[in-house]
Amino acid sequence: MIFGHVVVVGTGLIGGSLAAGLRRAQVAARLTGIDAVAAPRAMALGLFDDVGGPESAAGAEVVILAVPVRATADALAALGPFIDDQALVTDVGSTKVSVLAAVEAGLRHPTRFVGGHPLAGTERSGPDAASPSLFEGRRCVLTPLATTSQSHLASCTSLWRAVGAVVQTMSPVEHDRVLGLVSHLPHAVAFALAAAVGGGLAPVQGGLYGGGFLDTTRIAASNPAMWRDILLANRDAVLDALGRFENELGQLRAAIALSDGAAVEAAIARAHAGRTRVLG
Amino acid sequence: MIFGHVVVVGTGLIGGSLAAGLRRAQVAARLTGIDAVAAPRAMALGLFDDVGGPESAAGAEVVILAVPVRATADALAALGPFIDDQALVTDVGSTKVSVLAAVEAGLRHPTRFVGGHPLAGTERSGPDAASPSLFEGRRCVLTPLATTSQSHLASCTSLWRAVGAVVQTMSPVEHDRVLGLVSHLPHAVAFALAAAVGGGLAPVQGGLYGGGFLDTTRIAASNPAMWRDILLANRDAVLDALGRFENELGQLRAAIALSDGAAVEAAIARAHAGRTRVLG
Repeated sequence: MIFGHVVVVGTGLIGGSLAAGLRRAQVAARLTGIDAVAAPRAMALGLFDDVGGPESAAGAEVVILAVPVRATADALAALGPFIDDQALVTDVGSTKVSVLAAVEAGLRHPTRFVGGHPLAGTERSGPDAASPSLFEGRRCVLTPLATTSQSHLASCTSLWRAVGAVVQTMSPVEHDRVLGLVSHLPHAVAFALAAAVGGGLAPVQGGLYGGGFLDTTRIAASNPAMWRDILLANRDAVLDALGRFENELGQLRAAIALSDGAAVEAAIARAHAGRTRVLG
Repeated sequence: MIFGHVVVVGTGLIGGSLAAGLRRAQVAARLTGIDAVAAPRAMALGLFDDVGGPESAAGAEVVILAVPVRATADALAALGPFIDDQALVTDVGSTKVSVLAAVEAGLRHPTRFVGGHPLAGTERSGPDAASPSLFEGRRCVLTPLATTSQSHLASCTSLWRAVGAVVQTMSPVEHDRVLGLVSHLPHAVAFALAAAVGGGLAPVQGGLYGGGFLDTTRIAASNPAMWRDILLANRDAVLDALGRFENELGQLRAAIALSDGAAVEAAIARAHAGRTRVLG
């Protein structure tokens, strides 16, 4: 066992998968889930040893916040008084700058906080969608501050490696800018695309689509409240990313409007190069 | 055997898969491939009984044009003199209005032409990507005109059903409008998205992406020349579709800029409803 008592706050897809992965890796002596809604189901699925309220965080070695970004402040306010001064506190939120104020306000020792963001997920949600292999081979970004305790950063790195994630660190600001581009922008675009295509079809024209529509709009089925929060929590970076996208789309539109084949090909060539760069 | 001699012009992914599917279904007495570049490879892969030049179309019962849309006119000009007056002539082009002029110009009996468009494909191309099951369970739209021979429409329907496709008919104009929305727009959006994300990242930031980026930009890897031609051949419908998309994205952008959570959720709700309508 690397860790003693691990408490996961929020027992949905991410929190449940993390618990399942830690259990499979046999690195936690005890796994406790806290979730006002989903905890009973997570317990029934065998994801945790026990479930409880905020007071269950008392004495835990690790406290993982796996709640929606907007719920982070409330969760920390409720848990803060119970969290041990030595505990590692981490989260899984999709934006990282936005939680810093909540951490400062809610924790007695903010230096024990290590922001985290596993790049894994599906359009499904809830403990029934949890899987111990959700994080295998996926990136997990940790966003320590200059004041973050190095031993807690090391513990948090061990935690994510135990469930198979590939850990890398960057600043909260850099994280939010990069994720605005590689994750939040694709979601915004997929939402608009699914709405535009569906809105343009007569009901009798449904069922006529190819793999391209399916792929590009799969994430348009994502949870509305969660994505409302992410897009708003990372507003400035998302608007910057949207600006880049609108510029590219405008160039492609102009090329099509002018029947400029060379310019259309150039736009597609930029797409190939861009995708190659992102895939790394 | 339902058909005698079937000639496939263009032995890449679509033409090769069609040949492989017809062979597996044992519905063609003889399968001939015509392709100045890919025919030898298609023959080596066993997709055809024989390969040859335009004169191979003489006496064929069915001639299938599986060339890029822009090559349709040239293909018909070369083949027209050899095609039997009774032959069914069909194509697989992604746009349907644009080939009508080529058909009128290139065929002695345009009433024997039945426009076709199988909604199947991958980002791969060439005969090595061909598969007999490519069309299984996929839609194939046929676009007969008022003057189209009913017996040829029936033959063309049988042809596609033999390879597992679900056939439906609509006018060329309606096809182009619907496909502009469900296929061409997602490609245009994916091209701009991949270019924008890649263009915004530093080289060291590659490798940091989730399934959302992968899914939304998979079709951005599509063939540049083919998609240049499709986007230009269906220009007006694509521009209309882009207008619908830009309107949706503009609403979402405004909601984010104003931190209007209810409006962001409304946009995501339209995405859910739109996707449900398209999936039918």
